[in-house]
Amino acid sequence: MIDLEKDIQDMAIRGRKAARTLVGLSTKAKNKALLSMASGINEKRDFIQMENAKDLKAGEKKGLSSAMLDRLELSDKVIDSMMKGLSEVAALPDPVGEIEKMVKRPNGLMVGRMRIPLGVIGMIYESRPNVTVDAAALCLKAGNAIILRGGSEAIHSNRALASVLQEVLEGEGIAADAIQVIPVTDREAVNIMLRQEEYIDLIIPRGGEGLIRFVAETSRIPVLKHYKGVCHIYVDSDADLELATPVIVNSKAQRPGVCNALEGLLIHKDIAEHYLPQLAGEFKKHNIRMLGCERSVQIVSDITAARDEDWGTEFLNLSLCVKVVEDMEEAFSYIEEYGSQHTEIILSENYSNVQRFLKEVDASAVMVNASTRFNDGGELGLGVEIGISTTKLHAYGPMGLEELTTRKFIVYGQGQVRT
Amino acid sequence: MIDLEKDIQDMAIRGRKAARTLVGLSTKAKNKALLSMASGINEKRDFIQMENAKDLKAGEKKGLSSAMLDRLELSDKVIDSMMKGLSEVAALPDPVGEIEKMVKRPNGLMVGRMRIPLGVIGMIYESRPNVTVDAAALCLKAGNAIILRGGSEAIHSNRALASVLQEVLEGEGIAADAIQVIPVTDREAVNIMLRQEEYIDLIIPRGGEGLIRFVAETSRIPVLKHYKGVCHIYVDSDADLELATPVIVNSKAQRPGVCNALEGLLIHKDIAEHYLPQLAGEFKKHNIRMLGCERSVQIVSDITAARDEDWGTEFLNLSLCVKVVEDMEEAFSYIEEYGSQHTEIILSENYSNVQRFLKEVDASAVMVNASTRFNDGGELGLGVEIGISTTKLHAYGPMGLEELTTRKFIVYGQGQVRT
Repeated sequence: MIDLEKDIQDMAIRGRKAARTLVGLSTKAKNKALLSMASGINEKRDFIQMENAKDLKAGEKKGLSSAMLDRLELSDKVIDSMMKGLSEVAALPDPVGEIEKMVKRPNGLMVGRMRIPLGVIGMIYESRPNVTVDAAALCLKAGNAIILRGGSEAIHSNRALASVLQEVLEGEGIAADAIQVIPVTDREAVNIMLRQEEYIDLIIPRGGEGLIRFVAETSRIPVLKHYKGVCHIYVDSDADLELATPVIVNSKAQRPGVCNALEGLLIHKDIAEHYLPQLAGEFKKHNIRMLGCERSVQIVSDITAARDEDWGTEFLNLSLCVKVVEDMEEAFSYIEEYGSQHTEIILSENYSNVQRFLKEVDASAVMVNASTRFNDGGELGLGVEIGISTTKLHAYGPMGLEELTTRKFIVYGQGQVRT
Repeated sequence: MIDLEKDIQDMAIRGRKAARTLVGLSTKAKNKALLSMASGINEKRDFIQMENAKDLKAGEKKGLSSAMLDRLELSDKVIDSMMKGLSEVAALPDPVGEIEKMVKRPNGLMVGRMRIPLGVIGMIYESRPNVTVDAAALCLKAGNAIILRGGSEAIHSNRALASVLQEVLEGEGIAADAIQVIPVTDREAVNIMLRQEEYIDLIIPRGGEGLIRFVAETSRIPVLKHYKGVCHIYVDSDADLELATPVIVNSKAQRPGVCNALEGLLIHKDIAEHYLPQLAGEFKKHNIRMLGCERSVQIVSDITAARDEDWGTEFLNLSLCVKVVEDMEEAFSYIEEYGSQHTEIILSENYSNVQRFLKEVDASAVMVNASTRFNDGGELGLGVEIGISTTKLHAYGPMGLEELTTRKFIVYGQGQVRT
């Protein structure tokens, strides 16, 4: 007889206890453990793939799409890339213990801020079992314990990976509860997890918008998330159009199914008549389909007239919306109405317009003369990312190691008292 | 006929619209407005005090304590100090637009993080009407709109202050909705406010533990708060006892009724027999009462034996708990069990113990050889504070202007595409 409520709470309590011991770990010890995790996964490759095969078989029976089965599979290539990911995390600088902004106060107190782990992170995700290893590695490096809740279709794979990682932790003298996988697939387990605000400090959900909305609306623990990416490019009247075209095409077509792909194009009226036909010719070569405003349809006849519901859609395919705008102000209003605070781009050579766009547009990444596809932890220099946040509190944009930590004040005194 | 739900939501929507216009304001314009707010309050002193008198009269009728009435009163001195606060906020550096960590990526992209306002802040507080002005000033300087919900006993004062501030904003050409006071005293207004997650970005509650727990449990918007301050000092075996005594006395007695006052003293067993009697003598002079563990009572007979429920109590008066501990490990466990992650101090001359304490103790401020009373925004160099957070996400410790902002990524490109 299983008492799910008690079991999940016990996991959260054990995670909290483990987190307490991780704070004192040296960078060397954490890196050694990460590299041992890579070897451990290599050694247990057969076991992991055997367990993965159970998930794949069950998935086939359930009629999962081949794309879904593909994401589920722990092929040699995927296992190799998990191992590479572990070495990469080991090579990143350790944020924990870094002291920022140490200043001397008039009374002689030395005041600084020390980076510390957040504590216990709960990760809720869908099919890819490699997230189990990637997320565990980042959390360990940042000194956090992690509780993972993957999709039910990957349960055997996730349990197998967790058992390998926990065995490695034990061998390294690190609390095995630093990495825990919820071993049951009941949806109720997620509900219980989201009530453990006393023991879990942060929830990161990754997956479809439905999952993320459910988590955000249910959780009593703070959640860092993004629902979707509806990214725009504004082509200014002063844009360098030779630069613009490859950037726009790359933003839409390089990988259309991801959150930082382009979904809407705003073109200044002064260049629309000249530029839209040119762009349409280029789009044809890449099978990019345009759904446009009335004015754009008048300029290029094979643009489909957009319906009201098309504006602000996250297409995740080779379609995009096109709108001719009066000025940058109209672009601002459009982005405010239809954007998802993810990625917004201006293409322009006009200094003042660029500065105003950077300052006033509200999105996790605002860029000039570059592809939307660069809003990614690796590309922006974070090393690796555990997700992207379009919530403003704590982290806005890709989240790396630093975003898995916080800062406390530290003070060196010499007997000061307050008067 | 009032539709409260619609009215509060309208305020939130207007706050969001005003916030959009604040992002583009120059530092100069914000500072000018802050100084005009000070003059405005000075000019409308009579009106403000007349409205305040209504609250005071109602408070007397309701039988409020003289301490409560004192906090409620907008005397000339309090009005002068609000004016001084406004000038101080005007003099602080503007965090908005600051760019941190600009780095060049291998592909030539310049990547940085720009500080931006959070958006709309909701402030929920109890009696002191001066909080209305202090909080509005900080939020305006950080480019945020604010919606204020003060205590019902201060409603006339808060409405009067808001009308003066809004008139000044209008005169300065700034959206008056940047500063709004909820004009009704229904408790239901708070419930409605806490559901406006679409328009309000952050809630800061200030007041008693009951109010704060209610807000934290009800809100769908992120909340930064601290419930209480149960602060400790650990006196190490290597402490400089001449330094220790004034620090301990200051921590407890300088202002016992506040959250950064000392509530628990942990003394290493090697010095307890020598030091406790000495300390007890000093405590007597300051009327400090000790509730102690068995060992402490054996050493000093006039220590009262602590009951189980005394440990971890926020006394807010001249009492404190005393416990003799085996070693620093026992101090760590005690702090973990009874602390409130507010302020924790080590008194020691031992280098390694100091470093370990700073690293491993989990509190918003961890200090060496200094009074607990220094955990305060002004004392730690933030200029002013809007509250203290013992929640780890986003801000841990006193919150100043920087904590009322977040950072977005900005990228300067030259036509880069992703391959």
